[in-house]
Amino acid sequence: MKALWVSAHPDRGSLNCHLHQFGVRALHAEGWQVTESDLYAMDWDPVLREEGGADVETEQRKLADADLVVLQFPLWWYGMPAIMKGWIDRVFERGFAYDVMDPATGRARKYGDGGLVGRRALTIVTAGDRPGSLGPRGISGDIEDVLWPTLHGTLWYTGMSALRPHLITQARDVNASTIEGVERELADRLRSVADEEPIGFLPLDEEFYDHSIRLCEGVSPGLTGNAAHRFVT
Amino acid sequence: MKALWVSAHPDRGSLNCHLHQFGVRALHAEGWQVTESDLYAMDWDPVLREEGGADVETEQRKLADADLVVLQFPLWWYGMPAIMKGWIDRVFERGFAYDVMDPATGRARKYGDGGLVGRRALTIVTAGDRPGSLGPRGISGDIEDVLWPTLHGTLWYTGMSALRPHLITQARDVNASTIEGVERELADRLRSVADEEPIGFLPLDEEFYDHSIRLCEGVSPGLTGNAAHRFVT
Repeated sequence: MKALWVSAHPDRGSLNCHLHQFGVRALHAEGWQVTESDLYAMDWDPVLREEGGADVETEQRKLADADLVVLQFPLWWYGMPAIMKGWIDRVFERGFAYDVMDPATGRARKYGDGGLVGRRALTIVTAGDRPGSLGPRGISGDIEDVLWPTLHGTLWYTGMSALRPHLITQARDVNASTIEGVERELADRLRSVADEEPIGFLPLDEEFYDHSIRLCEGVSPGLTGNAAHRFVT
Repeated sequence: MKALWVSAHPDRGSLNCHLHQFGVRALHAEGWQVTESDLYAMDWDPVLREEGGADVETEQRKLADADLVVLQFPLWWYGMPAIMKGWIDRVFERGFAYDVMDPATGRARKYGDGGLVGRRALTIVTAGDRPGSLGPRGISGDIEDVLWPTLHGTLWYTGMSALRPHLITQARDVNASTIEGVERELADRLRSVADEEPIGFLPLDEEFYDHSIRLCEGVSPGLTGNAAHRFVT
């Protein structure tokens, strides 16, 4: 099994860089082959000016080759750092990651059926917030709502199975006496990453969505909001 | 009244660039002084490596001087282009845009009480999606949920009054015969931008949020999701 680990943190001494190295070793120990895209170290250019480029093709090959994609980043302004957003802006091109219209079938390839179908995707996110404030009634919004544009609008959009985010809160307070717990939780998570149940987003299928790509009346009846777009479990 | 218009589109011939020019003229016609940050034209560096910089200070002065902040962008992967995300990552520094702890009061300055309090913020967003798919039961999520990290986690976080997004759907299909309607709707929106009711996000106040920064039990009882963080209207 092959993994691509994409990370974005400017500080070599940061918790993120530590967990990046730790996580790659943990995957190795489980028998994964791991390719890395350390975006700051690569000096990745995040500004989309025109399509393509040799750097874009390299990243597309890494993605095509991966069974698991890890996106690891600190939560900045409740999203990913610009350097990672621009990795997606540039690399997830039409025809590669999705298609407005698949020439073979005449159908759009998106939301569960994109160019990256068959892959799992795990977000590993550090945040300064306390755990409660990124929970269901927390002021910052539930982490799965905060990451909706990534989990649903990017990973699921391109066909990947999005896993629940691995969230590390109060990241600024992690110290020598607490790092071991953080590492253990990450190692446990990575041990079962190939087997765990992904988030059950509904696919773009006429059973669930009507012609205007709204939920059919009988699906999640009366519900609005992001939670309406999931299989009831 | 002073406005700062921040825009991000690489293509000089795009709908976004047209609407940028149109919108600035429309504000001028209403008596606004308008300062611009055309991020592609400025060749803005979106990659946060260390704090500060002359370019950051210039943008902070523009923000400090504005009564209205317009963020205009095409929706890429259900978020803003990396160049604009990195404008926020770099410019919205602690001490300027928010404070974890206000030395004067000992309280955090965030969520309704940041460094940018007193300003209004309007997002103007183009999307390829059909209108229904960014509505309450649309597959892509309601535009106010999609933009939650910006509207609530950035604009409201720093004290600004976030206005409902001005969304232009099916942007790829706008043509010579439909552009007039798009322009008219934008001009109408900008005409009343100083007076319209902002989104009623709840402020960080012990009346609404408990010590772990979760909603108090009696506030939006039983509700979860982004909608729970609003005044009931």
